[in-house]
Amino acid sequence: MDYAKESLRLHAHLKGKLSVVSKVPVKTRHDLSVAYTPGVAAVSSALGNDRAKAFDMSIKANTVAVVSDGSAVLGLGNIGPYGALPVMEGKAVLFKEFGGVDAFPICVDTQDAAQIIDFVRKLSPAFGGVNLEDIAAPKCFQVESGLQDLGIPVFHDDQHGTAIVVLAALINAARVCGKRISDMRIVISGAGAAGIAVAKLIVSFEKPKDIVLCDSKGAISSDRSDLNPYKTELLKFTNIMGFAGSLKQALVEADVFIGVSAQGIISAEDVARMKPKPIVFAMANPIPEIFPEEAQKGGAYVVGTGRSDYPNQINNVLAFPGIFRGALDIRAPRITEKMKLAAAKAIAECVPNPTAEKIMPLPFDRVVHEKVALAVKSAS
Amino acid sequence: MDYAKESLRLHAHLKGKLSVVSKVPVKTRHDLSVAYTPGVAAVSSALGNDRAKAFDMSIKANTVAVVSDGSAVLGLGNIGPYGALPVMEGKAVLFKEFGGVDAFPICVDTQDAAQIIDFVRKLSPAFGGVNLEDIAAPKCFQVESGLQDLGIPVFHDDQHGTAIVVLAALINAARVCGKRISDMRIVISGAGAAGIAVAKLIVSFEKPKDIVLCDSKGAISSDRSDLNPYKTELLKFTNIMGFAGSLKQALVEADVFIGVSAQGIISAEDVARMKPKPIVFAMANPIPEIFPEEAQKGGAYVVGTGRSDYPNQINNVLAFPGIFRGALDIRAPRITEKMKLAAAKAIAECVPNPTAEKIMPLPFDRVVHEKVALAVKSAS
Repeated sequence: MDYAKESLRLHAHLKGKLSVVSKVPVKTRHDLSVAYTPGVAAVSSALGNDRAKAFDMSIKANTVAVVSDGSAVLGLGNIGPYGALPVMEGKAVLFKEFGGVDAFPICVDTQDAAQIIDFVRKLSPAFGGVNLEDIAAPKCFQVESGLQDLGIPVFHDDQHGTAIVVLAALINAARVCGKRISDMRIVISGAGAAGIAVAKLIVSFEKPKDIVLCDSKGAISSDRSDLNPYKTELLKFTNIMGFAGSLKQALVEADVFIGVSAQGIISAEDVARMKPKPIVFAMANPIPEIFPEEAQKGGAYVVGTGRSDYPNQINNVLAFPGIFRGALDIRAPRITEKMKLAAAKAIAECVPNPTAEKIMPLPFDRVVHEKVALAVKSAS
Repeated sequence: MDYAKESLRLHAHLKGKLSVVSKVPVKTRHDLSVAYTPGVAAVSSALGNDRAKAFDMSIKANTVAVVSDGSAVLGLGNIGPYGALPVMEGKAVLFKEFGGVDAFPICVDTQDAAQIIDFVRKLSPAFGGVNLEDIAAPKCFQVESGLQDLGIPVFHDDQHGTAIVVLAALINAARVCGKRISDMRIVISGAGAAGIAVAKLIVSFEKPKDIVLCDSKGAISSDRSDLNPYKTELLKFTNIMGFAGSLKQALVEADVFIGVSAQGIISAEDVARMKPKPIVFAMANPIPEIFPEEAQKGGAYVVGTGRSDYPNQINNVLAFPGIFRGALDIRAPRITEKMKLAAAKAIAECVPNPTAEKIMPLPFDRVVHEKVALAVKSAS
């Protein structure tokens, strides 16, 4: 199936995947007088006097901005805000379809962290939440942390959405293998936004025996002199045993491989050197770090990817719609660690009897998003 | 009818008057693969390489930002961006209903002109046009002119929308009275954003005998030492006869009164001192400069207001939906003077045989918006 061709045709036909529609009729003068002037003046006065009322009487109640600067779009890299637009529209479609959230794409024409923060602050009155998307690391950390006091949830999906679904997958894969996370050596390929967030959330859920992150130069270890502050901070809770070496070396005797990096970087032989019943999550998109067939040749016991054409798709869409649905429903000022953990557990629990071929629920199963929303609400 | 109470109830019930909906189905994995990843990557690459393609394959084709800083909302004054939100939502509703334009409210949390300009530039990738709204004068002039090179139309409706509908009303009122604009002395009460734009557009259509603008201190004349640069510039093409004095004095022997100012500031006696067959457009909202009954006591021949409960409603909603519809259809980079004049003429022509009681079409008459769009397209 040539998705590219079909997608180009669809987008050229639709000229945009979103439509803004009115919830009020405007067929008569009376309609106009109530929805617009003069009636609306009373509503405006109320919101002008007390901005919190925007959650009661305006689109702020149910609307999320999907914000990107286009600096790290899919696997395409820095293609800018115009290039990001079709992806952000797609994200908004998923927000509505799976979470009932009105989401609007905002592609910001600057790639400077301080300017993005300033822009989002000025943008915020009409929105009840902000989903940051496809912003390159390490800038994304600065942007997200600089906005946590905004009074509405600001959530970088590439970090936390990924971390939540990976943790959910790990919980169920551990059950399938009969292992405990606390006994596992976990190797993460990719020490950018996603890899760091995955490591943090796993540790926050249950401390593994060890967890080692690798970038293109090998393991993040205290031997390295080339680490940025974010990677250096990782050493506080990762690589306790002080391993130094390549990704392939790190995989020897590991229980879990988590790939949020680049296509084809490990082989069946690498998997064969892992501990018995190895867990392999190869999530580079569209071409994974290792294809499931290859991983199984090496003895992989549970394999997950980011793809929809293999079993065990580990996809953010299982998380973000329910997370914002829950957060908006309770007007949460931010998404806490507790909420993220609750969301991961809720996703895992959607598959009560996981097997090697079925550790994750499907996004089309509406119950997932409802359960995630409920978990987020209860965890607040 | 207590519109305020009904409007508060409606807004609390709806929690926002707009909804963002998907134009694509996402019921299957195939749907997801075409509308989102992996298919969307081809579309993103295309837009990343050539941003002009955003007009062909994204919401930019049909989406307008309705931008306000809340510094001059309705008659409520500076109530800030949260107070502006219900009005901007209403405006977006009208854009969709009458122009088929997808419009989204953006209430910007700054009231500094340079910062608003900078914000709108950064906001622009996803939008095919910007409707500025309820921004106080003289800041609104600076913001609008600072954005004319953006490549998409940036249109301050309080200025030009008002000017267009007033000119349309004047064209038909002149026909009803059997007068020519070139023979008229016109007095405008209000020398802010709307008043200045009205004066400019009338002069651009047909030079009247004279046109005098008055602010709260009286006529804008060269005698005044308290004028801001925008008012000083008016003297280049207004008040040719050098009149100095009050609004009421200016009205003596005038043919036309145009009020874009404050409630109740002229009386039947003032109208009685005008030329025969006086034209009175009293558009302060919701309470006009003079009520139609009063104006008629003073001998007014044609009376228009901003209200829907009197004949001859002179309302921007006759202009902006069709203007942006036309501009988006031809991807106009800006709204030109020629387009504004064409729009005014098109609105006037919607009433082929005007009478004193019927100089304006109704906004619910769909033909108006189609004719305005067509006129804008032809005038480009």
